[in-house]
Amino acid sequence: MKCPQEFVFAANYLADMARSRSLEFFRGEIGAEVKADTSLVTIADRSVETMMRDAIREWFPDHGIVGEEFPVHNPDAEYQWVLDPIDGTYRFAAGHPQFGTLIALARHRKPILGVIDIPAMDERWSGAHGWPTVHIRQGRRSEVRTRSCTAVKDATVFFCSGIMWRNDPMAVWNGMHGVNRLLDGDSYSYGLLSSGFADVIVDSGMKPWDFMPIVPIIEGAGGRVTDWQGMPLTLDSGIEVVALGDPALLDDVLRRVSAA
Amino acid sequence: MKCPQEFVFAANYLADMARSRSLEFFRGEIGAEVKADTSLVTIADRSVETMMRDAIREWFPDHGIVGEEFPVHNPDAEYQWVLDPIDGTYRFAAGHPQFGTLIALARHRKPILGVIDIPAMDERWSGAHGWPTVHIRQGRRSEVRTRSCTAVKDATVFFCSGIMWRNDPMAVWNGMHGVNRLLDGDSYSYGLLSSGFADVIVDSGMKPWDFMPIVPIIEGAGGRVTDWQGMPLTLDSGIEVVALGDPALLDDVLRRVSAA
Repeated sequence: MKCPQEFVFAANYLADMARSRSLEFFRGEIGAEVKADTSLVTIADRSVETMMRDAIREWFPDHGIVGEEFPVHNPDAEYQWVLDPIDGTYRFAAGHPQFGTLIALARHRKPILGVIDIPAMDERWSGAHGWPTVHIRQGRRSEVRTRSCTAVKDATVFFCSGIMWRNDPMAVWNGMHGVNRLLDGDSYSYGLLSSGFADVIVDSGMKPWDFMPIVPIIEGAGGRVTDWQGMPLTLDSGIEVVALGDPALLDDVLRRVSAA
Repeated sequence: MKCPQEFVFAANYLADMARSRSLEFFRGEIGAEVKADTSLVTIADRSVETMMRDAIREWFPDHGIVGEEFPVHNPDAEYQWVLDPIDGTYRFAAGHPQFGTLIALARHRKPILGVIDIPAMDERWSGAHGWPTVHIRQGRRSEVRTRSCTAVKDATVFFCSGIMWRNDPMAVWNGMHGVNRLLDGDSYSYGLLSSGFADVIVDSGMKPWDFMPIVPIIEGAGGRVTDWQGMPLTLDSGIEVVALGDPALLDDVLRRVSAA
């Protein structure tokens, strides 16, 4: 089923609103004066998420909402919005522009729409079932495609720092021996992959609001996203994710991460 | 000795030239079409460094030049320019805007001037002996200061991914237990620390063109930079660096990293 146009419009409108709100906090007087403590982060996080929740409830009163900061709303709804108001909260609090607002829409718990918005870099990726994945940077808009890459040895790979929380992060890292490995996976990296600048992302420690948006974005650009067992992601998936620009890499990547 | 004004002007002019050249390559037709292979990186690196070397030799024929891509020029000169045309080459090749051009000037092998320029984010930090450290983002210029932080437990810490190349990276990581740790140290992080957004950077695997520029920038903003033994950095220093926004943290940080 093609994602209804109205929802694509709404998701982008929501991202515009969230961007404006988060930039009110970013490197603002509070950010510059106060240490990067949890309360500061929480103020920005909660403010952006509350604003998005209020808008969704007004626009689509029958829909559900799953967000990082507040309890689930309408958990049995056919459509559920999945929200991460500020992904990369530590970076945000440290004045680093690589933070994002993540928005997804699930139907029957499967992702059908996603937005990765990077407010402080004025950059966005947006994708939905039946729509081309679109990238906008500083006002310049283009449809994007992942690139071809048929051998892992030729791949540019992003690792998320969530790998560090595993018992043996080096095992996963070493499983990609001989590859251009970058220890820098986060929502921005998924955008780069959908634009054809990277080939593989290996990620762990993820929550639904982290991984649901990336599925329609990357698959709408020609790539593939699964868990570490190769299963499609839903609202009920676990924390481990692989993303591929070229679906042909899937088996080799799964073999390497499962051996770790 | 105050850094001569002429050199501050020259360094910023050089950074302007380098920025223009590197942006010709960034996400350009070549970058979008070709995989992130070494030859692409080398073309951009060499082009930017050659341009900077040519300019320095024209402006200051008696000065020396130490750069990442070519042999040392005039190694016994009183003044030596230290150049990294593209710091973060893998990110650059993956279309990631967090790459930088690093420029330092050493007198008698000690750093007296530094520039961290981030072309694709339109952002720059510039510092020199006797001058205030200046930050420019999208045309907005301001003098910056590091912030106060008197206990490591309250610190926001960046770790460079160079830590991953140690035999036991987790030991260093765990040495900062109980702290807001971000696995994301690179030239950009040093800029954020000089602007008072972060408190500590623990870094390894560094070369002179990586660490020489950061000393005048951070110390001009009120902070402190040393090696892991607490010694000042020179052109002859090793690969391990700590940077502190508040010099009061030095002893505790050195104790933690040396225990690792």
